[in-house]
Amino acid sequence: MNEFDLIEKYFFRPAFQDNVIVGNGDDCAVVKAPAGYELAMSMDTLISDVHFDNSFSSENVGYKSLAVNLSDLAAVGASPAWVMLSLSLPAIDEKWLQGFQKGFFEHFNDYPMTLIGGDLTRGPLSITLQVTGFLPQGSAILRSGANVGDLIYVTHELGDAVLALHYLKKEKILIDSDAKKVLQRLWRPTARIKAGQLLRNIASSAIDISDGLYGDLTHILNASHVGAKIFVDQIPVSTCLEKQPKEFRRMAALHSGDSYELCFTASKNILFPELPCKITCIGEITEDLQIKIVDAAGIPISVMGESYAHY
Amino acid sequence: MNEFDLIEKYFFRPAFQDNVIVGNGDDCAVVKAPAGYELAMSMDTLISDVHFDNSFSSENVGYKSLAVNLSDLAAVGASPAWVMLSLSLPAIDEKWLQGFQKGFFEHFNDYPMTLIGGDLTRGPLSITLQVTGFLPQGSAILRSGANVGDLIYVTHELGDAVLALHYLKKEKILIDSDAKKVLQRLWRPTARIKAGQLLRNIASSAIDISDGLYGDLTHILNASHVGAKIFVDQIPVSTCLEKQPKEFRRMAALHSGDSYELCFTASKNILFPELPCKITCIGEITEDLQIKIVDAAGIPISVMGESYAHY
Repeated sequence: MNEFDLIEKYFFRPAFQDNVIVGNGDDCAVVKAPAGYELAMSMDTLISDVHFDNSFSSENVGYKSLAVNLSDLAAVGASPAWVMLSLSLPAIDEKWLQGFQKGFFEHFNDYPMTLIGGDLTRGPLSITLQVTGFLPQGSAILRSGANVGDLIYVTHELGDAVLALHYLKKEKILIDSDAKKVLQRLWRPTARIKAGQLLRNIASSAIDISDGLYGDLTHILNASHVGAKIFVDQIPVSTCLEKQPKEFRRMAALHSGDSYELCFTASKNILFPELPCKITCIGEITEDLQIKIVDAAGIPISVMGESYAHY
Repeated sequence: MNEFDLIEKYFFRPAFQDNVIVGNGDDCAVVKAPAGYELAMSMDTLISDVHFDNSFSSENVGYKSLAVNLSDLAAVGASPAWVMLSLSLPAIDEKWLQGFQKGFFEHFNDYPMTLIGGDLTRGPLSITLQVTGFLPQGSAILRSGANVGDLIYVTHELGDAVLALHYLKKEKILIDSDAKKVLQRLWRPTARIKAGQLLRNIASSAIDISDGLYGDLTHILNASHVGAKIFVDQIPVSTCLEKQPKEFRRMAALHSGDSYELCFTASKNILFPELPCKITCIGEITEDLQIKIVDAAGIPISVMGESYAHY
C-alpha cells in the first residue's frame, strides 16, 4: 500500500463544509473563508521521545496531537475549521495508524472541521498539524491586551501532567484511581475551544498553557508590557495533586507544561457568561515588569522548578 | 538562546501585507483573505536522509523546502501569500540556521509573502512548511479537468535531478560544468509560480512533477478518468541529459522525481500567453484508462524504472 492508498484509507473524509471547495487529493486544498471572518492559523509539531513517549498509545498520540493544535485556536477564541496533517512514520504500521486515526478523529468530530490535506512520509515518528479557525472580524484575543489592574484567570485545573510524568518515572506513587486521572490529563488534554469562543470581547488577553503557567504568562506580560502578582495557592489543582506536599504542588501548578488550559486576563468589572469549565482568579496584572509569586498572606515566595524550555 | 529567541533572530520579519493582522508571536497568526478570492493550502515535510542528504548545504535545504511547497501552489495557479514553518533540529546549530535562513529567504523574497508562524523543536532534522496562496474565485487548476483529446505539456526540462543523484553516487561521470548544472537543479528547483498563474483559465488540469512524470501524470488521469499517450522522445531534457544513452535518458525523463516542473493539459485549440519558461507538448489525453509510452514512430515501448514511491 503506498502513501496515497494509506491516506485514502485512514484519513480521507468527504468534506461536508461548504467552505471547502477541494479537499484532500489535489496539489492544494481550495477553501474559502466566510465573508466578514478572519482566519486564525497555527502549526505545531509533536516528535516521538520529545513530546510523547512509549507510555502513549497511538490512539493517545492521535488525540493529543490534535488537542495541542486546537488549543492554540482556543487561546485566540477561534472556531476550528480546517486541518492539515503531516505524518512521518519509520515504516507502514497499520495497527499504529488505526489507533492514531481513532484517537485523532475522536477529538476531531467534536467540531465541524474538515481534514483538507497533508502528507505521509517515511522518517522518524513525528506529527505536524496545521489548523485554521474562523474569527469574527477584529475579535481575536491576543497576548498583547492585558492592562494594569486586570485580574488573571485560568480554566479548570493545572499541574496534573507533571504529576503523571513523575508517576511514570516512578518518582511518585499514586493510588490507581488517581494515576488513571492524571495520566488521562497527560495523554488526552482538552482544548478549551468553547471557553475561548465565549471569552471573545471579554478577555483582554489569553494564552494556552503548554510550557507552564509561569512561562506562558510571561509571554502575555512581555507582549502587554506589564507584570503580574500570582497567588500561588489559589492556582486550582486536582484532588490528586492536592494530596502532594506543598512544594511539589506549587511547582506543578506554576510550571507544569502540557495542561492546555487557558490563562487569560479580564477587567475587574467584567461579567462572565456561563462557561463550560470552571475559571479561577489567580492574581492580577501589575505595573512592574515581572512576575511576583506570593503566598496566601501576600508574602513573596520562591518556587522551585521552571517552565518547559524547547531547547 | 531559547526557541523564541531563535525564531525571532532567524525568522521574524515584520508583516508588510495588509492581509496579515497578527503575524509571528501570538498563539495563532490572524490573517484575512482578500474579498472574492479563494485560498489554496498545501503542506509538505522534508526529512533528512529521505528528501535531502549530506550533499545539501543548509542553504540549499532552506531554498528547496520552500520551492517544493510553492510548487504545489504553482500547480493550481495560486499566488503565494502566507507561510508557516515548523523546523525540527537535533541541537541548536546557528551556522546551520544561518545557511537555512539565507536559502529560505532567497526564494521567499521572490514573492510578496509573509512568514506568519510555526515552531522550532528539538528532534531529528526535518522541515514542514505550510503555504497558503490566493486564487480568484473558481480559477483553481485541478487534476480532474483533463478531457479526451487535450494535449499534454510540461514546462522547461525534466530528468536532471536523477542524473544529479547518479553523479553523486558516482554512477555517472559528468564534466564539471554539467555536474554543476544538474546539481543546481536537484538542490534548487524553481517553483513555476508565474507559469501556473498565467495558465489559470487555460490549462484544463495540472500537477507539479515531484515523484516523476509517469507517476504524477497518473494522478491527473485517475482524477480525470482518462488515459494518455506520451511521445517519450519529445519530453524535453537538458543538454546534459541529452548526452546520456537513450535508455537512461528516457528513464530520467519519465521517472525522475524532484523536477518541480508543471505537467498540464490544454485543449488543442488553445492560444497560450507568453510564459516565463518554455513549454513542450509531449502527448495527448486518450480514452483508454492507461498511459501508453510510444517512440517517435508511435510504436509502444517499455521504459525501465518507476516513479518515486513514498514507502
